[in-house]
Amino acid sequence: MPIRPLRWEDDALWLLDQRLLPAQERWLRFDAWPGVVAAIRDMVVRGAPAIGIAAAYGMALAARAGERNEASRGLAASRPTAVNLFWALDRMARVTPWTAGSALAEARAIEEEDRAMNRAIGRNGADLLKPGSRVLTICNTGGLATSEHGTALGVVRTAWERDRDLFVIACETRPRLQGMRLTAWELMRDGIPFRLVPDSAAASLMRAGTVDFVIAGADRIAANGDTANKIGTYALAVLARHHGIPFAIAAPTSTIDPSLETGDAIPIEHRGEEEVTTFDGVRLAPEGCPVLNPAFDVTPGSLIDWIVTERETMPAPFDFRKPSPV
Amino acid sequence: MPIRPLRWEDDALWLLDQRLLPAQERWLRFDAWPGVVAAIRDMVVRGAPAIGIAAAYGMALAARAGERNEASRGLAASRPTAVNLFWALDRMARVTPWTAGSALAEARAIEEEDRAMNRAIGRNGADLLKPGSRVLTICNTGGLATSEHGTALGVVRTAWERDRDLFVIACETRPRLQGMRLTAWELMRDGIPFRLVPDSAAASLMRAGTVDFVIAGADRIAANGDTANKIGTYALAVLARHHGIPFAIAAPTSTIDPSLETGDAIPIEHRGEEEVTTFDGVRLAPEGCPVLNPAFDVTPGSLIDWIVTERETMPAPFDFRKPSPV
Repeated sequence: MPIRPLRWEDDALWLLDQRLLPAQERWLRFDAWPGVVAAIRDMVVRGAPAIGIAAAYGMALAARAGERNEASRGLAASRPTAVNLFWALDRMARVTPWTAGSALAEARAIEEEDRAMNRAIGRNGADLLKPGSRVLTICNTGGLATSEHGTALGVVRTAWERDRDLFVIACETRPRLQGMRLTAWELMRDGIPFRLVPDSAAASLMRAGTVDFVIAGADRIAANGDTANKIGTYALAVLARHHGIPFAIAAPTSTIDPSLETGDAIPIEHRGEEEVTTFDGVRLAPEGCPVLNPAFDVTPGSLIDWIVTERETMPAPFDFRKPSPV
Repeated sequence: MPIRPLRWEDDALWLLDQRLLPAQERWLRFDAWPGVVAAIRDMVVRGAPAIGIAAAYGMALAARAGERNEASRGLAASRPTAVNLFWALDRMARVTPWTAGSALAEARAIEEEDRAMNRAIGRNGADLLKPGSRVLTICNTGGLATSEHGTALGVVRTAWERDRDLFVIACETRPRLQGMRLTAWELMRDGIPFRLVPDSAAASLMRAGTVDFVIAGADRIAANGDTANKIGTYALAVLARHHGIPFAIAAPTSTIDPSLETGDAIPIEHRGEEEVTTFDGVRLAPEGCPVLNPAFDVTPGSLIDWIVTERETMPAPFDFRKPSPV
């Protein structure tokens, strides 16, 4: 069964509580939009595409309650960096006539299209990977981060389906450990061989020649290819370039924000200190320890060799200011 | 009161159990050398210079028990990477006549000399730091890692004593979080302003222009300047070079191993998977998740701008094959 982070059932949105994985698989039911806002903010659901889909279903719940504007504002304020959220809300805003039925139909369409897009991203990206490749990735960009299959991890998944000859190095991804908790769980479920490493070990693996390719997802891509993604992605891009290892970003075109000339304009979310200092409620840092916890960083387009979307695999340099021919 | 990881008292070695910091300050008493072997292996005491001093006192305990050879072999096998351990054991091996009294006197001398060396490292290194510098560091290289004061963190401490004008960015240092648990604790005790960051956030701080200097300790330095240190140090060196930020190593000369031409010959300790997957006994990774946990990496001498010892501050390039003129 494919790994999915959400489903619509019994007139409600159900979200797999990703904060509890891999220890527990608990589904939470949401029948009103304010709960969806909190679920996005608190990372019950996370991953740029999955956030967008959850927000679309949040609007479907709002349509039923007749609370369109409040819901749209509330969902837009839930997390600032991933542009897919705003893209999904924009799409929901264009639904006419605005009825509970048409809003739900559009949310379902967004989810279904994401499923197809991830498969296409997987096919495009897998063409970049030779059989036997040792692929390093960060955070979770798999089924849990999307409708199913994934973006960067979807590329890995498609390549694995093709040749069954691939090895993954999964960075644990501090502070919330999505690599350790989510990506490792997905890879084990699919039987894809891998090792989990602390983020800081990636450099020495590259130096040892045991990394052939680096691939990451994206939360927002500016017109020049500058890419906001999970904190640590930028370090991997610098390290990959230093070691002559190809570095690719995989994301649906809804992640591209041509309104931003460069990545400097992407809002970077700073999250709470307790994400860094506590583990399962146990505090490991001294009381009062000051912490900086940026959730994302920006990788300049100049360090990215490929951007893989559902449409194509684009080599550098990038220019998304042009209107797409499609 | 200065921060110290060990003391000799009541005919026994006392070690501050660093695994419990900052939550608890518990001192453990060792009156026989096998306990010291276990304490080094299990990281009750850690930090290259502190390991060397603890091993010297372990030999003093062995002298009292008439177990010189067993103890020397046992202590040498406790941890493989830091050369200070072997340096201290070599020094203890040259004690004549071999009596309980002379062995203890030599261990005390090693501790006292380390104290003076750290002060000298601090003075030499602090000359590299302009007032107002924002200094990024990794792991713990402070009082807890030495006899007192520290190596890389000793440089920070001396610079702070001089001008009271310095800001530290402390990398949390996965997997054992010595930056979060130990360095943050030391900096708070001394009132030195700082922020703790996930290791993966260092790159974006460098890109934002908020890091002026990077300084780290060392577990072993080869003849060409290649330096083994805590996993993650190599990534910081690549990133510092990429951003044009000076990168220095601070360590006593006993850390230099001229018998090794390059860092490729330095043995790198791999530690248990549970260091990565569990926090305070709670497992966060899926059961059976495969992990790679190298405790150290090697930074090529070509990425290091300065090596600071108690004798001098040496600029690159490095060549420690030459016999020292001193």
